Amino acid sequence: MTSVFVTFEGIDYSGKSLQSRLLCERLQSDHRAVLLLRDPGATRISEKIRRLLLDKALDEMAAVTELLLYEAARSQMVAQLIEPALASGRTVICDRFYDSTTAYQGFARGLDLDLVQAANRIGSCGLVPGHTFLLDLDPAAALARKKISGRKADRIEQEGLMFQNRVREGYLQTAAREPDRFTVLDAQVAPEVLHQTIWSVFVQKFDE
Amino acid sequence: MTSVFVTFEGIDYSGKSLQSRLLCERLQSDHRAVLLLRDPGATRISEKIRRLLLDKALDEMAAVTELLLYEAARSQMVAQLIEPALASGRTVICDRFYDSTTAYQGFARGLDLDLVQAANRIGSCGLVPGHTFLLDLDPAAALARKKISGRKADRIEQEGLMFQNRVREGYLQTAAREPDRFTVLDAQVAPEVLHQTIWSVFVQKFDE
Repeated sequence: MTSVFVTFEGIDYSGKSLQSRLLCERLQSDHRAVLLLRDPGATRISEKIRRLLLDKALDEMAAVTELLLYEAARSQMVAQLIEPALASGRTVICDRFYDSTTAYQGFARGLDLDLVQAANRIGSCGLVPGHTFLLDLDPAAALARKKISGRKADRIEQEGLMFQNRVREGYLQTAAREPDRFTVLDAQVAPEVLHQTIWSVFVQKFDE
Repeated sequence: MTSVFVTFEGIDYSGKSLQSRLLCERLQSDHRAVLLLRDPGATRISEKIRRLLLDKALDEMAAVTELLLYEAARSQMVAQLIEPALASGRTVICDRFYDSTTAYQGFARGLDLDLVQAANRIGSCGLVPGHTFLLDLDPAAALARKKISGRKADRIEQEGLMFQNRVREGYLQTAAREPDRFTVLDAQVAPEVLHQTIWSVFVQKFDE
């Protein structure tokens, strides 16, 4: 089995982090070397940039600046962690990658999609996921999950339901344009059932 | 007189800051509204990004990440300060702008020049300086000036003489490609004489 780069996408509370972890654990139980990351984050520099991005006090941040900071955090993670891991044959699972930027900064914030795509190419250092699982969820259902969790909103999460609907729409349009790369899943399905579906797609695509 | 955007470029210790200030003061003494900025910097968000860029401890920073952080700092300054100032008829003077990125991250660090240009377009929000003064200085002479100043080196300044020579060469090549936008000046000329030259170029281009 060669090294594989898989990403999970979806709005907050769609269950991306859980499903990335379950896939990671499943692979590890098969004694495969896996690296589980979240974007933005994972490196010291990316975490510092992440802190700027999620700081609610910086509400004057321009949409283009937000875009470029996401790309900066991503490029450090790609150069420092993902590229070396893939080169050494490890499987890399990433909780969010550039499709998040297309959905949030492009479709939801309204930045020009060509500009976002150009930025994505720079920030990902040209790396394209081998497969992407989109956990599709109605933002109203996400809000209900959020209320149960009791977590406070960060700068991005404060944007409200209309914004989240544009994000969801952006994800679905992106997935429709690249059907071979994307699997769109109903995030309301029970986590263990979702995990089984993800696992079969993974095995079928990469393990034959 | 319409609003004008002027930039100063050159390696460290070439006298950019002094010459930008002298031009600013000259315009102010004529009762013109002027905004003097330095890139990266000038806004709260850009200053936070600048601090990351100049932090010597972050020596694992990837060249692409550095590029994107400069662009992020720049885009916030353009959106928050430069565009509103130009729209209200003010003259904007900027100590460094995207030609620095071309020279440092492109020519000196060796990033692909097309990639740097694409990043520059995003980070400058499409804004092009009306005129650029390049203060050309031999890096050996800059080093002598630096020793007199007694200042400590930051992450970028640590790179050494070969790096600074590539920066200088990058500046000169950029200026040669856009002769109408650039005035190349010998930075070893006395500051008050340099200022007079800059002032006459400025008046001739923008004040007729």
